[in-house]
Amino acid sequence: MTDRTADRPPARRPGGRNARVRARILAATAELVARDGIAGFRYEEVAESAGVHKTSVYRNWPDREDLVVEAMLRYAEDLASVADTGDIHRDLVDFLVALAGGLETPFGRTLEQALLPAGQSAVVRQALSRILDRRVAAMRERVAAAVERGELPPVDSAFLGEMISGPVHLVVNRGTRRFTRADAERVVGVVLAGIRATAPHG
Amino acid sequence: MTDRTADRPPARRPGGRNARVRARILAATAELVARDGIAGFRYEEVAESAGVHKTSVYRNWPDREDLVVEAMLRYAEDLASVADTGDIHRDLVDFLVALAGGLETPFGRTLEQALLPAGQSAVVRQALSRILDRRVAAMRERVAAAVERGELPPVDSAFLGEMISGPVHLVVNRGTRRFTRADAERVVGVVLAGIRATAPHG
Repeated sequence: MTDRTADRPPARRPGGRNARVRARILAATAELVARDGIAGFRYEEVAESAGVHKTSVYRNWPDREDLVVEAMLRYAEDLASVADTGDIHRDLVDFLVALAGGLETPFGRTLEQALLPAGQSAVVRQALSRILDRRVAAMRERVAAAVERGELPPVDSAFLGEMISGPVHLVVNRGTRRFTRADAERVVGVVLAGIRATAPHG
Repeated sequence: MTDRTADRPPARRPGGRNARVRARILAATAELVARDGIAGFRYEEVAESAGVHKTSVYRNWPDREDLVVEAMLRYAEDLASVADTGDIHRDLVDFLVALAGGLETPFGRTLEQALLPAGQSAVVRQALSRILDRRVAAMRERVAAAVERGELPPVDSAFLGEMISGPVHLVVNRGTRRFTRADAERVVGVVLAGIRATAPHG
């Protein structure tokens, strides 16, 4: 199977060029927000770092908060999915490893900090809550599939999500050691065993 | 049994008056750090709020960081102990409820924020790490007693501590709901059951 889109001229992919520009701007925003904080980054630097003209940034995001929120949501996209290989233990371990990797990035740290109630704007807090909602929804879907197949007893997926991701946040935020795949294996192992052992019989 | 110290004159309790002054200063510092952040609080306000002369603050803590650190450690004292009633489940639930209560205070939130690597001073980070060390030590001692009595299989107490307190930090930091005693019961129940179920036989 050949890549049928690779050599198409830009004219046949409406929005293609602008989509790439937008992606570069969002990536640059994420980097600068990580470095300078949500209040500190500047449009001039975003444009320079993305290799676009400043007017491209202003035209696409006249509102500064919209730009931050979209950069945050894009970043979170990667962290809000849970794969379904049919093995709930393995999929949750992969999820935790990805979560730890994301939280360890400068942007992840900035997001964690923004979560603390230190006067972030309502818009940013809303974006964070949308990120969490997506993650909760992805977890709900994956856990429902596992329950359906008899891999797990019926369980509150939000609770399961908090149980496994709480230790990841704690270890990464403390910053005294890395959260490894072995940690993820151990956390998921204990939580799934505990959920199975405490499930009501019947 | 009567209180034999209550009516002794100050002269017979060396340091008594100064100890009270120090306690008031530390309490005032904790409050102001919670309100204004570690970098923002002022000695004048500490003195005023503690009802002491400014020179009392300077005399006891010529170094500003020492004052913050001592206020932090004093606060953490309450959160660094795990009772031993002989029932490990109950004692861990009580620990989590106290932890959640502490993290929900303005000072607790300030501490959580200081934990994030956003350029806190080395001294403050050291104090935080001493707080964590104390908590880890308290947990180790309590878990060792439970293992000794056959309440738990041999287990890494630091891991157990992260497993139960991770969800507390996560829920409190998100700030979308309270962490209740029912939450604590559920968390401890699943973690202890999971640790028992995954323990190597023998």
